[in-house]
Amino acid sequence: QGERDEKAMIADFKGVQFMSPDTSFYINFRFRMQNRLGANTISGTDLSFNEYDARVRRLRMRVDGFIMNPKLTYSIQLAFTRGDQDVDNTGIANIVRDAIIFYHFTPKFYVGFGQNKLPGNRQRVNSSGQLQFADRSIVNGAMTIDRDFGLKAYYHNKIGEMDYHLKGAITTGEGRSVNSTDDGLAYTGRVELLPLGEFTGGGDYSEGDLEREPKPKISIAAGYSMNKKTNRTGGQLGKELYRPVDMATWMIDAIGKYRGWAYSVEYIKRHVDDPLTYNLSGSLRYAFTGDGINHQFSYIFPKNLELAFRYSRLTPSVKILANESRKNILEMGTTKYFNKHRVKMQLNLNYMAVDGNYAFSHSGNRWGVLTQFELGI
Amino acid sequence: QGERDEKAMIADFKGVQFMSPDTSFYINFRFRMQNRLGANTISGTDLSFNEYDARVRRLRMRVDGFIMNPKLTYSIQLAFTRGDQDVDNTGIANIVRDAIIFYHFTPKFYVGFGQNKLPGNRQRVNSSGQLQFADRSIVNGAMTIDRDFGLKAYYHNKIGEMDYHLKGAITTGEGRSVNSTDDGLAYTGRVELLPLGEFTGGGDYSEGDLEREPKPKISIAAGYSMNKKTNRTGGQLGKELYRPVDMATWMIDAIGKYRGWAYSVEYIKRHVDDPLTYNLSGSLRYAFTGDGINHQFSYIFPKNLELAFRYSRLTPSVKILANESRKNILEMGTTKYFNKHRVKMQLNLNYMAVDGNYAFSHSGNRWGVLTQFELGI
Amino acid sequence: QGERDEKAMIADFKGVQFMSPDTSFYINFRFRMQNRLGANTISGTDLSFNEYDARVRRLRMRVDGFIMNPKLTYSIQLAFTRGDQDVDNTGIANIVRDAIIFYHFTPKFYVGFGQNKLPGNRQRVNSSGQLQFADRSIVNGAMTIDRDFGLKAYYHNKIGEMDYHLKGAITTGEGRSVNSTDDGLAYTGRVELLPLGEFTGGGDYSEGDLEREPKPKISIAAGYSMNKKTNRTGGQLGKELYRPVDMATWMIDAIGKYRGWAYSVEYIKRHVDDPLTYNLSGSLRYAFTGDGINHQFSYIFPKNLELAFRYSRLTPSVKILANESRKNILEMGTTKYFNKHRVKMQLNLNYMAVDGNYAFSHSGNRWGVLTQFELGI
Repeated sequence: QGERDEKAMIADFKGVQFMSPDTSFYINFRFRMQNRLGANTISGTDLSFNEYDARVRRLRMRVDGFIMNPKLTYSIQLAFTRGDQDVDNTGIANIVRDAIIFYHFTPKFYVGFGQNKLPGNRQRVNSSGQLQFADRSIVNGAMTIDRDFGLKAYYHNKIGEMDYHLKGAITTGEGRSVNSTDDGLAYTGRVELLPLGEFTGGGDYSEGDLEREPKPKISIAAGYSMNKKTNRTGGQLGKELYRPVDMATWMIDAIGKYRGWAYSVEYIKRHVDDPLTYNLSGSLRYAFTGDGINHQFSYIFPKNLELAFRYSRLTPSVKILANESRKNILEMGTTKYFNKHRVKMQLNLNYMAVDGNYAFSHSGNRWGVLTQFELGI
Repeated sequence: QGERDEKAMIADFKGVQFMSPDTSFYINFRFRMQNRLGANTISGTDLSFNEYDARVRRLRMRVDGFIMNPKLTYSIQLAFTRGDQDVDNTGIANIVRDAIIFYHFTPKFYVGFGQNKLPGNRQRVNSSGQLQFADRSIVNGAMTIDRDFGLKAYYHNKIGEMDYHLKGAITTGEGRSVNSTDDGLAYTGRVELLPLGEFTGGGDYSEGDLEREPKPKISIAAGYSMNKKTNRTGGQLGKELYRPVDMATWMIDAIGKYRGWAYSVEYIKRHVDDPLTYNLSGSLRYAFTGDGINHQFSYIFPKNLELAFRYSRLTPSVKILANESRKNILEMGTTKYFNKHRVKMQLNLNYMAVDGNYAFSHSGNRWGVLTQFELGI
Repeated sequence: QGERDEKAMIADFKGVQFMSPDTSFYINFRFRMQNRLGANTISGTDLSFNEYDARVRRLRMRVDGFIMNPKLTYSIQLAFTRGDQDVDNTGIANIVRDAIIFYHFTPKFYVGFGQNKLPGNRQRVNSSGQLQFADRSIVNGAMTIDRDFGLKAYYHNKIGEMDYHLKGAITTGEGRSVNSTDDGLAYTGRVELLPLGEFTGGGDYSEGDLEREPKPKISIAAGYSMNKKTNRTGGQLGKELYRPVDMATWMIDAIGKYRGWAYSVEYIKRHVDDPLTYNLSGSLRYAFTGDGINHQFSYIFPKNLELAFRYSRLTPSVKILANESRKNILEMGTTKYFNKHRVKMQLNLNYMAVDGNYAFSHSGNRWGVLTQFELGI
C-alpha cells in the first residue's frame, strides 16, 4: 500500500497497469497532484498576510515496472512544476527525480544503479505523497541528504522476531542537476531495526497509522553520510558554494504505530569543518551546519480524519549563527483521508518562534496556515 | 465531442482510456501536435519574406479522469514546446498548463481548485485545438486573462427554453509561473445566455459549425475581471512590470451557428489607471490598455472543407500610443477537417494595416501566410 | 525490431499499445533510460581521474502510432534529462526531440512534416538506443547534421536484387530550439544502395549484427546537406555564431553484416567559406570545419556478448586549427545484450591521441572508461 521511494512499486500500488502480451515487461503508471493555498502572517501580533503560497506545488508522474523478469525492475519519477525542479537554486529545470534500475539478487537483497533518494532520514525517504503534514519539517529542509546518482544496495532479514534493514550508497554527492562531478563522492549507510516485526503495508515509510496496526510496531534507525568535496550549500541541494567542503551528516530516527496512534521522531546533525566560503569579491555562501529534531504525534479517527501535532527545532551551529537564526515550530495538522494518502485534504496551522522565544511580540515570530488538496492514482 | 478547458473531459472525448479493475479511478490520456510553416512579408508592397515561423508550435499531453467516483474529477495538461512554455517572457519553462481538481456537487454545479483557464473571453477558453484559424486573434493576444491558480465555480441551469451559465473565480492574478504571490488577487465573473438552448456537442466552445446545427443556436456572454496589484504587463501574462497595477478587463462575446454557418464576435476592453511603470534607470514597461474587437464568419462545405473570414481591430489606449500602434487585420482561412478538430490542415492568409490605413504602401503594413497541420487523439 | 528515427514505429516494436475500440487510432508508448558511470584520466601517463561522468544520460519517452488509418502516422519523442536538452548550449530546455506527422502515399513513398532527424550520416540516424558503444563517435559529434524542422520525403524501391532508398529534406537549418528562423534554409539529400537486399529487421540502422545475418548484407550511402545562413557553430547544433554562414556537409557511409560480424564506416567532410566569426568586442566563435572518419568492427558471441573495436579520426580544417586539435581515438567495447538493444550493459575503454601522436607522454592524450546500463521497453 505505502508508496516507497527506495524500490520499484510493482507489487503493492496499482495505477494504470500494462503487461506485455508475452509477459516480457510490466509497467505501472501513476500521477500525483498537490494544489495548495497558504500564507504566513507578518508577525506574531500582526495577523495580516503579506504573501500567499498558492500554486500547484507538485505534479508528478511515476512509472515503475519490470523488464524480462521481476528481478530486473525500474523506477522513474518526473516532476513538472517549477517549485519541484530546483530552477530557483540551479537555473536548470530538473524534470527527472528518479531514474533507477534495480536488480534483485534474492528476495532479500537488491542493488540499484541510477538516481533516487539516498537512504537518509525517514521523513525524506517517505514519498511526498505519504506525509501527514503538507510539508516536511524545517529540520529535513535544512539538513536532508536528498536524491543522488550512483550505486545503492539494500538488504533485509530477520534475527528471531526482529526484522532489520541495511542500506548503503556510493554516489556523486552533487545531487540531481549535474552533468559531471568531481572526484569527491558521497558515502551513505543506514541501519533499521524493527524489533516487533514489519509494519502492515510498509507503514514504516508512511506517516500516520492509516492501517491501524493491531499490534504495536516500532522501527529505530540510524544513518551516516559523508559527502566529500561537495560544492553545494546543502550537500546534494542548494546553491553552489565558492569552495568545496567535506560534509558529515548523522541521522537518527524512529517511528511507532498502534491502533491509529503514530509517533515519529528524527534527529539530524550536520558538520563541516569550515562551512563559510567566500568568492574573490568577498561574498559569502555557507554550508548549513547544526542540528535539529522533529517530533510528530497523531491519531486517526474512525472516519479517516486525523489529528497530528508537530514540534520542530532547528539549531544552526555557532559558525553560521550570524546568518541563520534558531527556529522552533509548533504545528497542528488535520487531514481527511478520502482514499488513503492518494486523495486527501489537509489543513495545517503553525507558529514559528525564533531564538527560542515564544512571545507573540518577539521579532521574527509568525503564524502560518496552509491547506492542501492531494489527488493521485 | 468538443474539448473544453473548463472541465475534465471524461464523458465526451475518448483517447487512451483506462478504468481500474475495481472502477476506483478512470483516466483518459490524449495528445495534440501542431506543426506549422508561416511567414510575413517585409511590407505591403515588398512581398519577400524575411523570417519564417517554422516549428512544432504545440505539443501537448492531456490527462483527464475521475478518482473514487465521477464527482471527483481532475484535468491535467502539459506543454512541451518552447513557444508554449512562457520561457521567452519569464525565463522559466512552465510545463504545467492545467492541473486542477473538480468536485461536482450536483450535475449543475461544480467547483475547481487549481490551475486552469479563467472564465474569460470565449476564444481563449476554446482549446487551441478547437480553433478555425491557426492562431487566436490579436485582440485575445493583447488582452486575454489566460490561466490562473485558485478557486473556480461553475453553475448552469435553464429558465424556460434558455440555458444559462454562471462562472466565477478568485485567483492569484499572477498567472502560471509564480512560486508565491502578493496579496492582490484577481476576481473574475462571467454570464452566458443560450436563448435557443445548448449547442450540439458543446459547440459554443468550438469554432466553426462542424456539427451543422439543424436549428439556430446562439450564446451571448459578458464577463469582467479585476486583477488587483498584478505585476505583469498582461495581468496573468507578459513580462514583469516595475510597479504593480490594478487591471480591469471587460469582455463581451457571442457565437451563433446554423447549418454549417458560424459567426462569432468578441469585444475586450482593458483599463489601468496608470499603465506606465518605470524602473530606477528610467526604463519603461507598461500594461497594455485599450480595446479591440474580433469578428469571425465561416461556412463548412459538405466534404468538411471550411472557409472562414476574420476581421480584428486592436486599439491601444492614448496612454500607451507612443509605444503601440493601432492594428487592423483581415484574414481568410481554409481548413480541411479530416477528423473534426483533431486532425486538420489549415491555410491562413492575412493582411495587417496599421494606424487604420489599408494602403499597401503604408509603413508597417504587411501580408502573412501560415499553414498548420494539427494531429491529435 | 530495430528502432528507426525516420519513421513511426507502428509495426515492428511493441511497447505499451492501445488501439481505440473503433480502430480509429493506434498508439504505442515506450521509454528508454541510460544510466552511466565514466571517467577520463588526467593524461596518458597519469591514470588518476579528475572528473566523473556519472548521471542519467538519457531518459526518453517515445510515442508512435496512426490516426484514422495506417497511412497517417506520427512519431513523438521527449527528452527529460539536462544533458539531452541543449540547455548548456542554448539556455533553453528542449524537451521535444521528435514531433512529426507522416503521410504514406504508397508503401514505398512517404513524406513527413515536422521535427525529426535529417537523413544524415548513418550513426546519427541510428537511435541512441541502437548503438554498440555508449556514445557516438567524435566525428559524428563534431559534424553531424542532427534534427531539424521541415518537410522530408522518403522513397524506396528495387532495381533487380538491389534495394535503394532516396531521402530528401528542406528544413529551417536552425535545429531544435528556435522560435523563428531566417530565410536561409537547409537542403539535404541522401541515397542508399543495398545491393544484397534489405537487412533482417531493419538492421542497416542498428549497430552490431544481433540478427546474425545468414547471408551477407551491405548498405552503401552518400548524402549532402547545404545549410544556408545558419547561425550556429554546428549548423543545427551548437552555440550561436556572431554572423550567419553557409555550411556544406558531405557524408559517405557503409555498413555490412554477416553471421554475427558487423563492420561500419562513415566519412564526413564539412566546409564553410569563412568559418571564423567575431563579435564587436573581438570574441571568436567558429563553425567547425574539417573532416573525419569512423570505423567500427564487431562480433557477437553466442550468448549475446559482443566485442567491438572503433577507430575515429577527426581533422579540423586549417582555418580553425589554432583552436581545435586533431584527435584520434581507439576504443574497445564489450556489450552484453540481455534483450536486444533494449536491455544491455556496456563497458567501453578508449585512448585518445591528439596531433596524431600516440605516445602516452604526449600532451593532451588520455584514457577513458565508461560503463552504461540501458533499459527500455
